[in-house]
Amino acid sequence: MAKEKKFVEAITPMAEDFAQWYTDVVKKAELVEYSSIKGCMILRPNGYAIWENVMHQLDAKFKETGVENVSMPLFIPESLLQKEKDHVAGFAPEVAWVTHGGNEKLQERLCVRPTSETLFCDLYKNIVQSHRDLPKLYNQWCSVVRWEKTTRPFLRTTEFLWQEGHTAHATAEEAEERTVLMLNVYADFCENVLAIPVIRGRKTDKEKFAGAHSTYTIEALMHDGKALQSGTSHNFGDGFARAFGIQYSDKENKLQYVHQTSWGLSTRIIGAIIMVHGDDSGLVLPPRIAPTQIMVIPIAQHKEGVTEKALELKETLIKAGFKTKVDDTDKSPGWKFSEQEMRGIPLRIEIGPKDLEAGQAVLVRRDTREKRVVPFEQVTAVASAMLEQMQNDMLHRAKAHLESHIYEADDYESFKETVATKPGFIKTMWCGDEACELKIKEETGATSRCMPFIQEHLGDTCVCCGRPAKVMIYWGKAY
Amino acid sequence: MAKEKKFVEAITPMAEDFAQWYTDVVKKAELVEYSSIKGCMILRPNGYAIWENVMHQLDAKFKETGVENVSMPLFIPESLLQKEKDHVAGFAPEVAWVTHGGNEKLQERLCVRPTSETLFCDLYKNIVQSHRDLPKLYNQWCSVVRWEKTTRPFLRTTEFLWQEGHTAHATAEEAEERTVLMLNVYADFCENVLAIPVIRGRKTDKEKFAGAHSTYTIEALMHDGKALQSGTSHNFGDGFARAFGIQYSDKENKLQYVHQTSWGLSTRIIGAIIMVHGDDSGLVLPPRIAPTQIMVIPIAQHKEGVTEKALELKETLIKAGFKTKVDDTDKSPGWKFSEQEMRGIPLRIEIGPKDLEAGQAVLVRRDTREKRVVPFEQVTAVASAMLEQMQNDMLHRAKAHLESHIYEADDYESFKETVATKPGFIKTMWCGDEACELKIKEETGATSRCMPFIQEHLGDTCVCCGRPAKVMIYWGKAY
Repeated sequence: MAKEKKFVEAITPMAEDFAQWYTDVVKKAELVEYSSIKGCMILRPNGYAIWENVMHQLDAKFKETGVENVSMPLFIPESLLQKEKDHVAGFAPEVAWVTHGGNEKLQERLCVRPTSETLFCDLYKNIVQSHRDLPKLYNQWCSVVRWEKTTRPFLRTTEFLWQEGHTAHATAEEAEERTVLMLNVYADFCENVLAIPVIRGRKTDKEKFAGAHSTYTIEALMHDGKALQSGTSHNFGDGFARAFGIQYSDKENKLQYVHQTSWGLSTRIIGAIIMVHGDDSGLVLPPRIAPTQIMVIPIAQHKEGVTEKALELKETLIKAGFKTKVDDTDKSPGWKFSEQEMRGIPLRIEIGPKDLEAGQAVLVRRDTREKRVVPFEQVTAVASAMLEQMQNDMLHRAKAHLESHIYEADDYESFKETVATKPGFIKTMWCGDEACELKIKEETGATSRCMPFIQEHLGDTCVCCGRPAKVMIYWGKAY
Repeated sequence: MAKEKKFVEAITPMAEDFAQWYTDVVKKAELVEYSSIKGCMILRPNGYAIWENVMHQLDAKFKETGVENVSMPLFIPESLLQKEKDHVAGFAPEVAWVTHGGNEKLQERLCVRPTSETLFCDLYKNIVQSHRDLPKLYNQWCSVVRWEKTTRPFLRTTEFLWQEGHTAHATAEEAEERTVLMLNVYADFCENVLAIPVIRGRKTDKEKFAGAHSTYTIEALMHDGKALQSGTSHNFGDGFARAFGIQYSDKENKLQYVHQTSWGLSTRIIGAIIMVHGDDSGLVLPPRIAPTQIMVIPIAQHKEGVTEKALELKETLIKAGFKTKVDDTDKSPGWKFSEQEMRGIPLRIEIGPKDLEAGQAVLVRRDTREKRVVPFEQVTAVASAMLEQMQNDMLHRAKAHLESHIYEADDYESFKETVATKPGFIKTMWCGDEACELKIKEETGATSRCMPFIQEHLGDTCVCCGRPAKVMIYWGKAY
């Protein structure tokens, strides 16, 4: 019983210590385990299965837009990394260096890829000759390494899993179109599948990707009112093409530089799922991303027919297309309920001897704990409706949370007060000057999140310096 | 036209130079591109799509046996690698070492994983306490790095993609069962999906995996008569468990060491597909693994209705479950045929203005070039039958090739002559002494491939030393 006790011990309540709640959830839902390499995490089956579903669904969306998958080397020679000057300045300080292969010292150091723009450029230089070779719409699913000082599971780790798309186009217009297209793929995925509403917009020059002309971002709001950058899409213009010499001959047989994009989404998104939807009983997974959607739990399972009926229900539900499991281990029902709740499995079906007699089962939603007693023959239909409703409700709740945590500030005093007292996004007007951005960050801890695609006219002057404003912008404290 | 010419230039015939034929195929079918990192290859869309299909199908088979996927760190601290002495001796000479993170020298070197036994042991030590935690049946799809001196695409590369399964069990019997089970999963996959017949058996002590009690292997025969080790499964007994201290309390509450296995299959298998099935026109892909199964090629596609009908056929075939594409680029039909053949797409459907008039299409098998003229309404049924037949025929041809290249030798003279003159496997009796194995390797270049599960009694004495024989064994020159 010692072990059972340990599990059902309450996790730290969110309201008491949100960071500790987060750590408790990722450990107790068995999503990750720390490894003996500082900052590198192990994704356990419960955690990796979520990522598998993200990969599966997002990959299908990419392919619908013509994207093809490839696999690029893990290593980048130092000289290749250095070809684009902004890019190397951004990444060189945080890469891992391989200096020896076997027993020999390498002639040139190799870094473990922190991102693969340089490798894709090196490839495109070799395989793009004519306008007929364009566009190239490549993506890879892999891990990358960035030497981080402070790390937290999913949110910031030395190694993390992601996908990185890299495209090359004949024209600047096509590249811009692709940059926005992929950002929208991410945003739609977050909203429709993960039930996470996001703000779509452009990063400031200060916050954009090293080497990019422009970076677009989706920003989500966590339960504690902090922002999480959840996916980014970059337009490189022809900057990398010029640095790497990637040219094609156009229809008039003239040499032109290609225009490029890259876009990435990482396991960080699992951190967002946890912090947007979780509660004091643990994880709450949106049905469309849950590796197990329904857990059938027999009560007094030694009683005749109970386990058999549970297994029968499972088969019926699997045939109807639901990812269903039965927990017929010898743990107590209470323990099984806690476990199912901790893991965020959307729907629980309880069935005991009395239910069996009455020809019914009890269906319980994870998010609201709404309970419905349902005749066996209606279990599939009701389970389907409850899961659908839960998915919708989760999105609406998250939207309401987001909308009720967007504040507005016209002047610097009210801005500072809002940052200090109201966790969430603050929308303001901005002059566009990096000096104001730096001042705000230094004095309040809030950073610019994005200049949203949907601009509002909130006033005429910059919230910081009072000079004429150029753009509307979101600020917030962020992970 | 310069580019078209380059493509349809014949590749080197197999009979003339098999190694060059292989290199031509991997390049011209656009499976790989060399990268600027020595020994690391780029998998292009045509190559990676094959691997995606391998992953997809094999992963489903793994999961049917209860396996769960995880993600482990890319790095192994030097001290961790050194915990099991045979293992470190086997791998340390060929690993890449990370010595710096960002601008700082690391306190301890990290190697880039050449394989992850040590990492899984470190995890199991932390998460296995009770017999109820067993078995652990974990797998990961990832890349590993081994610093190779000479490399060839797919067959031997510094970095390669693979899966590595790592399991922990309560008993030695269970571990042995799992080792054999996974070898059979590989063998069945090779035969049923890849149309590659394999010999299943056990490696000699000399050839087994560093740290294993026993290694099982599947050995395939390439078109040139050389063997390719195509997948391995290892039983570690409790050796790693003792080195890492992985213990569980059994039902009587006594501490016991776990018993472990690992098993892996890599992108090397794509090399096998190429070298078992390819011909002088390029790749030939078994229908069950082909990323594109049918290529519809319109002839005189500017003529009214031709391209429309091609696209209509494609839609019909996709709905019927076949991976189908239309090549409606502005290349010539001859060029398109060469390209489809080079890429090994199993079935070609030609449709021109006269076919349209006659209400028919021409179906051509890639392997035999068998042609069938078929009324539109029968295209789906005939395509299905031709693909099925092609899959079967490919396996039978490969089986006939394997069986006709297995030789037998009773004494050392005939053994040496067979090795020198007849490419293929040689089966013999063996005393079990490593001295004979070393002598054979040094004097003939043949290595022990495996002691097959299905043993035959070929005689009483060792083919090499003439002393009493203990076991039947296969020898061969290998990749």
